[in-house]
Amino acid sequence: MYEILDKIELPYGVRKLKLSEKRQLAHDIRELLIASVANCGGHLASNLGVVELSIALHTVFDTGLDRVIWDVGHQSYVHKILTGRWKEMENLRQYGGLSGFPKGLESGHDAFDTGHSSTSISAALGMARARDQLGQKHAVVAVIGDGALSGGMAFEALNHAGQLDTDMLVILNDNEMSISKNVGALSAYLNRLRTDPSYTRTKEEIETVLHKIPGIGSNLARAASRFKDKVKYLMVPGIFFEELGFTYIGPVNGHDLQELTLVLTNVRRMKGPVLLHIITQKGRGYAPALQNPDLFHGVGPFDIDTGHLPKKSRKTYTELFGQYMTEKARDDQAVVAITAAMASGTGLNEFAHLYPERFYDVGICEQHAVTMAAGMAKAGLKPVVAIYSTFLQRAFDQVLHDVAMQKLPVIFAVDRAGLVGEDGPTHQGVFDLAYLGLIPNLTIMAPADENELLDMLHTAFLLESPVAIRYPRGVGEGVEIQQERQYLEPGSGRIVQEGQDIAILAIGRGVKLGQGAVNLLAEEGISALLFDARFAKPLPEKQILELAGRFPRLVCIEDNSMAGGFGSSVLEILNDQQQNNQVLRIGIPDEFIQHGRVELLFDFLEMNPPSIVQRIIHRWPKLGRNRSLELLRFGKK
Amino acid sequence: MYEILDKIELPYGVRKLKLSEKRQLAHDIRELLIASVANCGGHLASNLGVVELSIALHTVFDTGLDRVIWDVGHQSYVHKILTGRWKEMENLRQYGGLSGFPKGLESGHDAFDTGHSSTSISAALGMARARDQLGQKHAVVAVIGDGALSGGMAFEALNHAGQLDTDMLVILNDNEMSISKNVGALSAYLNRLRTDPSYTRTKEEIETVLHKIPGIGSNLARAASRFKDKVKYLMVPGIFFEELGFTYIGPVNGHDLQELTLVLTNVRRMKGPVLLHIITQKGRGYAPALQNPDLFHGVGPFDIDTGHLPKKSRKTYTELFGQYMTEKARDDQAVVAITAAMASGTGLNEFAHLYPERFYDVGICEQHAVTMAAGMAKAGLKPVVAIYSTFLQRAFDQVLHDVAMQKLPVIFAVDRAGLVGEDGPTHQGVFDLAYLGLIPNLTIMAPADENELLDMLHTAFLLESPVAIRYPRGVGEGVEIQQERQYLEPGSGRIVQEGQDIAILAIGRGVKLGQGAVNLLAEEGISALLFDARFAKPLPEKQILELAGRFPRLVCIEDNSMAGGFGSSVLEILNDQQQNNQVLRIGIPDEFIQHGRVELLFDFLEMNPPSIVQRIIHRWPKLGRNRSLELLRFGKK
Repeated sequence: MYEILDKIELPYGVRKLKLSEKRQLAHDIRELLIASVANCGGHLASNLGVVELSIALHTVFDTGLDRVIWDVGHQSYVHKILTGRWKEMENLRQYGGLSGFPKGLESGHDAFDTGHSSTSISAALGMARARDQLGQKHAVVAVIGDGALSGGMAFEALNHAGQLDTDMLVILNDNEMSISKNVGALSAYLNRLRTDPSYTRTKEEIETVLHKIPGIGSNLARAASRFKDKVKYLMVPGIFFEELGFTYIGPVNGHDLQELTLVLTNVRRMKGPVLLHIITQKGRGYAPALQNPDLFHGVGPFDIDTGHLPKKSRKTYTELFGQYMTEKARDDQAVVAITAAMASGTGLNEFAHLYPERFYDVGICEQHAVTMAAGMAKAGLKPVVAIYSTFLQRAFDQVLHDVAMQKLPVIFAVDRAGLVGEDGPTHQGVFDLAYLGLIPNLTIMAPADENELLDMLHTAFLLESPVAIRYPRGVGEGVEIQQERQYLEPGSGRIVQEGQDIAILAIGRGVKLGQGAVNLLAEEGISALLFDARFAKPLPEKQILELAGRFPRLVCIEDNSMAGGFGSSVLEILNDQQQNNQVLRIGIPDEFIQHGRVELLFDFLEMNPPSIVQRIIHRWPKLGRNRSLELLRFGKK
Repeated sequence: MYEILDKIELPYGVRKLKLSEKRQLAHDIRELLIASVANCGGHLASNLGVVELSIALHTVFDTGLDRVIWDVGHQSYVHKILTGRWKEMENLRQYGGLSGFPKGLESGHDAFDTGHSSTSISAALGMARARDQLGQKHAVVAVIGDGALSGGMAFEALNHAGQLDTDMLVILNDNEMSISKNVGALSAYLNRLRTDPSYTRTKEEIETVLHKIPGIGSNLARAASRFKDKVKYLMVPGIFFEELGFTYIGPVNGHDLQELTLVLTNVRRMKGPVLLHIITQKGRGYAPALQNPDLFHGVGPFDIDTGHLPKKSRKTYTELFGQYMTEKARDDQAVVAITAAMASGTGLNEFAHLYPERFYDVGICEQHAVTMAAGMAKAGLKPVVAIYSTFLQRAFDQVLHDVAMQKLPVIFAVDRAGLVGEDGPTHQGVFDLAYLGLIPNLTIMAPADENELLDMLHTAFLLESPVAIRYPRGVGEGVEIQQERQYLEPGSGRIVQEGQDIAILAIGRGVKLGQGAVNLLAEEGISALLFDARFAKPLPEKQILELAGRFPRLVCIEDNSMAGGFGSSVLEILNDQQQNNQVLRIGIPDEFIQHGRVELLFDFLEMNPPSIVQRIIHRWPKLGRNRSLELLRFGKK
């Protein structure tokens, strides 16, 4: 089926191929990528951009020994293909199948597990120093995009590496995009490096730099001098990086296999920290992705011929948030929206289009996003910071220290909360109720449906204090949107359905799971009350205590880690108010949850409605059988 | 008493002073600073370094209107003095007295509360954008040290500010020190700016830049041209900052009041983001601080004449940690130590001296520190990351995502855990049991005394998985150090003292508080068992359940926030194992705790032993009275 891929032994067969065969291999890989992602969903555009880079890396480096760290890691599909995992691409990101990110447990060729942005240079520096200390000789390479380079910790690592002067290679994969269009002065600087001839070194300067390369140096200089423009050995000052102690080389065409291989071969021999700047195109080789790399950054299954995605049956929480923000901004000039390279992912494209002067995409800089919002709030604006649950972890200290401590009215729209599914453990948003819940002064809400999301946003603007609203990825429940918005009194939940035998306290997506369980319990003759807490902080203490008084047995359901989560907070108030109800907590266990469809993960975690019912009945086998007796006994206690 | 300070109206009197009077004012302020810190303890060296800067700022800017943000904020004493709070300096950092950090609640002249490093540029950018959006005209200034500038979020903010091109001033207060000696390539770069004549612009270039200043430009250029070296208007390329979109001006002598005032006056009129690089001396004007700025960074009360600090009665946990590390490194070549600008504060000076090639001070870069350690651990080293509890919050995501998810054997020495006292809410280490406790795969320990700390370190190296050990600031309990180290089985605590009426489960510093309570309870005829949990994660579940079986009433004591803390974890396991004990949780409430001596704070929080006893007796008035009857009843249940 594949001309080259089918034939060669991986990964070492790659280096034996002729240039023309490698080009065919690149073609094979692109076909495989498109087919796999069309089938399974995933990150397409970024992988299409690094096909030649990955082939060149596997030509020059031995990832069994040399350590190559893929920053963020969603662009590691080609590397996975080239290290012999290509037949598993048909189960990419599926439960039990190939992960969409580097995983040491999957292959020794994956040097370091990544997922969040801007970690690669730090990890690479650590590995390079370990290599030196242990007297080893292999190469250490970090591959980082221009978007990820804007993250503060990448700068911390560059700054430190430049000082330590350790042999390591940072490949800056510059595609002028992070997820959305790139931002920041550094991005503009990279653009100047690419385009401004005054940034290009003179031939003499190039030769001086080339002479630094031990052994090969003078030969290479001669070669470069000979080929000149043919082998485009552009070496521009890259003074920004040079001032940080790196030798800067580039920009190099990241799709020219021959040039790239030659450059990597030579760069490998250079001493000290080297930054190789390559230019690639996101989505290369697939027209729909080239035209819309934002959409094809992370995408669900799609039609290969048209590039069309199946239409969604209903609106997502993300879309509803975006829509609310646009309307709110129209009515209130003080509203601003801030995101960290996720304008599209957080539903803010329309806002950005309509109110560009009140929209801030800060790049992959969650820390700065939050503290800038704090400054804005302190100065009288109404900032809304929209960041995914898993990425807001990066700004934990800023939420606590810069926003909550000063009680500043910053609203956090925490998208992709709870299980996110196919992206796996690095992206599950299952910790926010715990890591935000421990922060004083913060109000935390989680909607059970579309109206609640909108009411919570409405409420957040009225509170004038720090608020986080966490909501899941994907479509809503399909309820009819009410026109009138309700103010939700902090610490007030609502009884969704009355019942007699047991009370289920749920929050966020837990309410839907709880509703399913209530329906199934009814079939068993068990009458369960369903309570939607709405507020994780402050908890609806009064209502929960009332329910605790009525029901000896309570169930808590949440789409969050149970360690320090919603159920744990319920235990705290029950204990502190000296209620000794029996409580069954249902939520994410204290472990990292693998990738797979959310529904499958809920099955696996025994959190789907049938499992919940089983767990309830297992815990209380006699539930509902002696209803009047039970009530009597508990009432007397 | 003070020649100028006593006489003028603050803050606006400052600008009316003649130069000679300002110099006298600087002298007054230095005297006041030294006297106040000698009396109350605090940050001395950094404040001595910004006396002239603060006077110049209050000459040129109106902090009632203009917004001046002090990064980190421990250098804001002079600003506090100049804004009329100088008589309160006698209660600096004391309970109920003046805070050692900027506090909006204390004065409207404190534009933004700070404490953690590298937040000022983000906050200033937010305020500057708010000003523009709201049509206001005031100036926004961030004052940031060269150490804080190495923090990643400062870079994120510079990068964004450079792109937005908003009017704002960043004053880089370059004293070649953060807390310890500064590190990183950027630091070396700043050094080149200071010293290398090739970085100095030609006169023509200077004039070109000066002409950019609207209105005053050409006059100033003429003036500069006239005074030349006399008014040292050095303007060096500062290409690093210019590439990020800032206009770079400097370096300027930060102790020359005349020059500084002139420069600030002119810089104020410049458009777009400006970085003014000033050079100051930490500890200026007080010989002991000049000679030992590291010691006088943050210092307890001392003798003014000699600069001597009172001798400590016994060793601190920090010192014991440092000593253990030195010995461990001698025996095991794979051990490395990493800190974030806290070599001295974390007790690693000796380690750094003996094993410089295995010691890493990464600057104020907690994120990078943690992920670099992850890389090292992955590559076979045994890294120990020593960071204060409050600063480790910055690396929450890295601990979770880069270390714990891959189960990498990184040891976190979490110093200054629990209440730290005088530094107040921005520095209290009261959240770590919660924010670390929610992280899967992490083992968390907290020692009750010196031997436990050493045994925990010993254990951590044997575990080969991620471990955090949190211990408090200050001296240990004074126990005799045993020569033999014990391996502590994860999830095993110890019964410190047997008892019959009630069981107190404590961890870390809670054990000492618990011991005090046990002793007082005995006087009341109540026999309490004291259990030292040692492990916050995994909890000593088996032992706790045994105790739960023996004692209907349990008390949990921790030096951590109760929201998601140790007591909360105890509730989780009791509930999950269907134990319905009555539990009294004692710990930090869900609020930010103000500054003051730790003992006073424990009093205020009703966490000292007498208060604990009161709370126990209030909760269970009949405790101990009907001992046999109680046991019988509970045993039958």
